[in-house]
Amino acid sequence: MGGFILQRLQRGTFRFDMKPTVLAFAGVAGKKEGEGPLGESFDKVHEDPMLGQVSWEKAESTLQQEAINIALDKAALPAANIDVMFSGDLLNQCIASTFGLRSLGVPHMGMYGACSTMVEALINAAVFVESGAANICAAVTSSHFCSSERQFRTPLGYGGQRSPSAQWTVTGAGAAVLGQGGRIAVNSACIGIIDDLGIKDPCNMGAAMAPAAADTIKRFLTDTGTSPNDYDMIFTGDLGFVGSDLMRQLLLREGTDLGEKHNDCGMMIFDREAQDVHAGGSGCGCIGSVLCSNIMQRMLDGELHHIIAVATGALMSTTSSWQGESIPGVAHLIELQTV
Amino acid sequence: MGGFILQRLQRGTFRFDMKPTVLAFAGVAGKKEGEGPLGESFDKVHEDPMLGQVSWEKAESTLQQEAINIALDKAALPAANIDVMFSGDLLNQCIASTFGLRSLGVPHMGMYGACSTMVEALINAAVFVESGAANICAAVTSSHFCSSERQFRTPLGYGGQRSPSAQWTVTGAGAAVLGQGGRIAVNSACIGIIDDLGIKDPCNMGAAMAPAAADTIKRFLTDTGTSPNDYDMIFTGDLGFVGSDLMRQLLLREGTDLGEKHNDCGMMIFDREAQDVHAGGSGCGCIGSVLCSNIMQRMLDGELHHIIAVATGALMSTTSSWQGESIPGVAHLIELQTV
Repeated sequence: MGGFILQRLQRGTFRFDMKPTVLAFAGVAGKKEGEGPLGESFDKVHEDPMLGQVSWEKAESTLQQEAINIALDKAALPAANIDVMFSGDLLNQCIASTFGLRSLGVPHMGMYGACSTMVEALINAAVFVESGAANICAAVTSSHFCSSERQFRTPLGYGGQRSPSAQWTVTGAGAAVLGQGGRIAVNSACIGIIDDLGIKDPCNMGAAMAPAAADTIKRFLTDTGTSPNDYDMIFTGDLGFVGSDLMRQLLLREGTDLGEKHNDCGMMIFDREAQDVHAGGSGCGCIGSVLCSNIMQRMLDGELHHIIAVATGALMSTTSSWQGESIPGVAHLIELQTV
Repeated sequence: MGGFILQRLQRGTFRFDMKPTVLAFAGVAGKKEGEGPLGESFDKVHEDPMLGQVSWEKAESTLQQEAINIALDKAALPAANIDVMFSGDLLNQCIASTFGLRSLGVPHMGMYGACSTMVEALINAAVFVESGAANICAAVTSSHFCSSERQFRTPLGYGGQRSPSAQWTVTGAGAAVLGQGGRIAVNSACIGIIDDLGIKDPCNMGAAMAPAAADTIKRFLTDTGTSPNDYDMIFTGDLGFVGSDLMRQLLLREGTDLGEKHNDCGMMIFDREAQDVHAGGSGCGCIGSVLCSNIMQRMLDGELHHIIAVATGALMSTTSSWQGESIPGVAHLIELQTV
């Protein structure tokens, strides 16, 4: 006692010393996601967008519930062993999380970072485990194409045409259980600064979030004295094709070339040509389901050893856009390494 | 290095060892709050509900900005010294926080715990300071009567009659800056479990949140082996008159008598008779503005030495209520003591 456990490197960037680890993870997804390139990676794929529920919102809650339950099963832990659960989603007042997780009876911290929430939740979970505040923590997020379209855009039945820069909200959820002794360690984290370059087009979220992603990656590499070559891969959450291009350009301008080291969960989850998703996938459930299935499994399989995951969020609401506001972005980063 | 800093007592309950402290705090409020019993306590009272902005949402953002700026002034710290800011509010996608704080350029973690957000943010800020992840953290929340009415209830011009159990959303914001060396220490915390006894009346939030408050207080007292007599006061956030009565009854039934030790920020902030607020005040800005002005100042003045603050949140949205759902509650607790 007396000293610090976490090593602060700079504002918002810190290194873990006892390395909290991922004990288990799970990703569940919808039909379209199941038909995409990562379909085989998910723990469960739902053909029915309602998941047997009476509303899309309740279906999304069920996605969260399933993701955490599968992750707990894999960890061979009952829910009662979770000290603190960190979760969030895109729905107003985060109801997918609240209603999805209320039956677990677990101490619960609600997060809101839009599509950056998965990494935000993982960082908090890791800090709580590292500091001793908790033995076991969990991080869960979700999104659902239908609940998002209805809340943020137009009624699905309206059949509005989508612009080329628009992204497709992923129907899916991801969950991770953190504690000591797992094989994927959390090495360090960098908390995002809200960045707003004045993008106002809600059909171009990738452009709104790209500056925040570039800023967080740049800050992290500087603060840790590392370069993209020190990592096997740098995964962004849901910049999609348009946002990823912009982020790479912004970083190149500052002398950082991601080269072949970068991929984006929103580009990975759908087949751009065959699945008509325009600029790619998005949503809290995008990096949530991809990180907590495909990416972490590739780490366990030895294909990836050392990665960075950067989840990006567009911090607007329909009200802020109706009032003529621009779309601020934020990006949170976590460094993971197999041990 | 190597050991833990925080002492986990039970699931969700933990004790701080190096005791992060409150370096400075500020509460700002609207006209009605300024006319109430705590009017003199606020750092700033706004006669104009628009705060010179073009919308209530932007006015609420301005409340957050003012609260953190006043707190930073008092701490004699520039915003650039904040390592991590934890904030949240009631608006869809937490836009009061995002737009209020984006200009500060500070690493930002969005929280959502409805009206429990102030204590949720304080707990996270304290854990980050204690663990060494951050030197200086801040916690900020807000609510605004007009932005809340429009979002959650009916247009203000509709003039709907309010039920006797209805509460009045506080126009206000609170901010606290945490670091080492202040005079108000964070001793311990207890993270709330989502509790849902089936209340469906959105005009009776107090009843929906009372079980969660009782549960968190009971868990905390059990986990720490203390009783209400060990504290000068136990402040709940915004149970109001109806919810406070219910909470006391629930605790009495389990053998815990709060006696004269309990007060509720929602009961303190308005004059029930003279101000026509029915069951009292509510909102993220209720405990936010009261804790970060009146209560913390009374601690500095020596009137209070050792308190518990329990912020309660009703985790519903208009969509969940329209879909016939009940209203889950959550309550987060923090123990503060002067040093």
